[in-house]
Amino acid sequence: MRLGIDLMGGDYAPAEAIKGVEQALVESDLSDVHLVLIGDESRIKDHASFDLNSSRLSIVHTDEMIEMAEHPTRAVSQKRNSSISLGLKLLAEGALDAFASAGNTGAMMVGSLYTVKAIEGVIRPSLSTLVPKVSGGTGLMLDVGANADVKPEAMVQFAKLGSLYAQHVLKIDNPKVGLLSIGHEREKGNLLTQAVYPLLEDNRSINFIGNIEGRDIFQDSCDVIVCDGFTGNVVLKTCEGFFYQLKKRGVEDEFLDRFNFKDYGGTAILGVNKPVVIGHGISKSSTFVNMIRLSKRLVQSRLIEKIKSSLI
Amino acid sequence: MRLGIDLMGGDYAPAEAIKGVEQALVESDLSDVHLVLIGDESRIKDHASFDLNSSRLSIVHTDEMIEMAEHPTRAVSQKRNSSISLGLKLLAEGALDAFASAGNTGAMMVGSLYTVKAIEGVIRPSLSTLVPKVSGGTGLMLDVGANADVKPEAMVQFAKLGSLYAQHVLKIDNPKVGLLSIGHEREKGNLLTQAVYPLLEDNRSINFIGNIEGRDIFQDSCDVIVCDGFTGNVVLKTCEGFFYQLKKRGVEDEFLDRFNFKDYGGTAILGVNKPVVIGHGISKSSTFVNMIRLSKRLVQSRLIEKIKSSLI
Repeated sequence: MRLGIDLMGGDYAPAEAIKGVEQALVESDLSDVHLVLIGDESRIKDHASFDLNSSRLSIVHTDEMIEMAEHPTRAVSQKRNSSISLGLKLLAEGALDAFASAGNTGAMMVGSLYTVKAIEGVIRPSLSTLVPKVSGGTGLMLDVGANADVKPEAMVQFAKLGSLYAQHVLKIDNPKVGLLSIGHEREKGNLLTQAVYPLLEDNRSINFIGNIEGRDIFQDSCDVIVCDGFTGNVVLKTCEGFFYQLKKRGVEDEFLDRFNFKDYGGTAILGVNKPVVIGHGISKSSTFVNMIRLSKRLVQSRLIEKIKSSLI
Repeated sequence: MRLGIDLMGGDYAPAEAIKGVEQALVESDLSDVHLVLIGDESRIKDHASFDLNSSRLSIVHTDEMIEMAEHPTRAVSQKRNSSISLGLKLLAEGALDAFASAGNTGAMMVGSLYTVKAIEGVIRPSLSTLVPKVSGGTGLMLDVGANADVKPEAMVQFAKLGSLYAQHVLKIDNPKVGLLSIGHEREKGNLLTQAVYPLLEDNRSINFIGNIEGRDIFQDSCDVIVCDGFTGNVVLKTCEGFFYQLKKRGVEDEFLDRFNFKDYGGTAILGVNKPVVIGHGISKSSTFVNMIRLSKRLVQSRLIEKIKSSLI
């Protein structure tokens, strides 16, 4: 299994990415993966305090990179040799089994659509985030920013994509799908959720439990939370803000700590033809290890094949 | 000043409402208000452990009430003698200077529109919520649920209504207005925020600072947060959920405690002709005291006259 990692992406690149690679090499559950490091070879050599000649590593050199603040579409079309563009190209060609980056999220999204492409039948690929549950479990929320304005049919696909992810990657049996709204009653919500509700209800391939509210997000009542990308992104960042402020004030709590997005293994772009993993810009070395781990799980779970066959 | 209180509204009515009245009667800053208690006289007498013959109290009897789960429009049109309908009628007639209830929010909203009516020129009255800031201050977010789908022009009015509230009730000079979105850049957001941004920018009567993200909500960068009622309600309830879970886990923190919506004095419906205050369904006695206090501040601040003159 060949997993590509963008060493130039993220606020602390390449140092933290390289540290992450070093840690991944000694993790026993990752002993069967080959890591393809995409980035500036001399900078990688400068930072690496381990043997880069290992048979478990390859380096694909490029000194071009997409900055965090660059305009995604422009950057992807102009910087064909950037670490993100190169990684996605290798992935599309089959030279990689998965590709992960903590770089510019928009560029990863746009680049994936251009290069790896949406699975046939998928209206809009989606970005998801893991949601810590008070019980100790983990749910999934999507979309969280790839699609600010969404058509009802695309929302139904989010429910489907999220359910398959929850089932095959998070290993949740018959995952419960909730529609994020402003009241539990079916008629509550905005025009979009009111249009989506009956479509979800009629869809036999998912386990729809109805509307959920903001305060239900952390509860076990629902595994997959479906929303438009505007609402999802605002909720995600509100939680991040809450977490950040409370940690800054010294609050110690196990549940709260699970909102530390630095420790997340990133998130998959759901609905494209290959496993693509996006990490948070502020990723530290442990995040990179988790991104590699998620890449492996995505390949092993054969999630993309399962999405493809479910859309036939 | 005659302030009306619905004694039948809220999950713990009438007991907590009556306890709140008892507390309000001994608060020195409320010594100049006359309280009009609207509800079932015999139940009020059963619960009250203080002198109901005080010259500072009147009782308006009704044994009809709107339940928390009732359909707002139906309830308001059918239950003309409910405590909510009666309170709003007295307010519209001028027999009250303000009216507060912790009952069915939808019914309060619909009833206010039918009876007290929107101020001429106001497209859609709005529900707001106070937002605790880490610095210790308080901001305002609106809309938080009255308008799930909003036109750009109505969002601009929310900014205006919120600014006037922040200035005259919260006493914030030249309040900074932020548009809740999914990126700070002006082109980020959904179709609605993209349409609203230039309108806010062109509006000389408010102090627009641009887009803010979910993680900025608790910061001082912005005093008035403008959003559609769907997004605002989801954010509000997500914060409530976060607060509730952390308190349940025993987390003690001063900033966190300020998210205790039970201690809030409710929120005004902005854009109607008279001061109407809505309390949270789970209001306890202290909330009722604060609702009375907010009612008084709304009357004293002459907010409604200020809104009217700003719309001329």
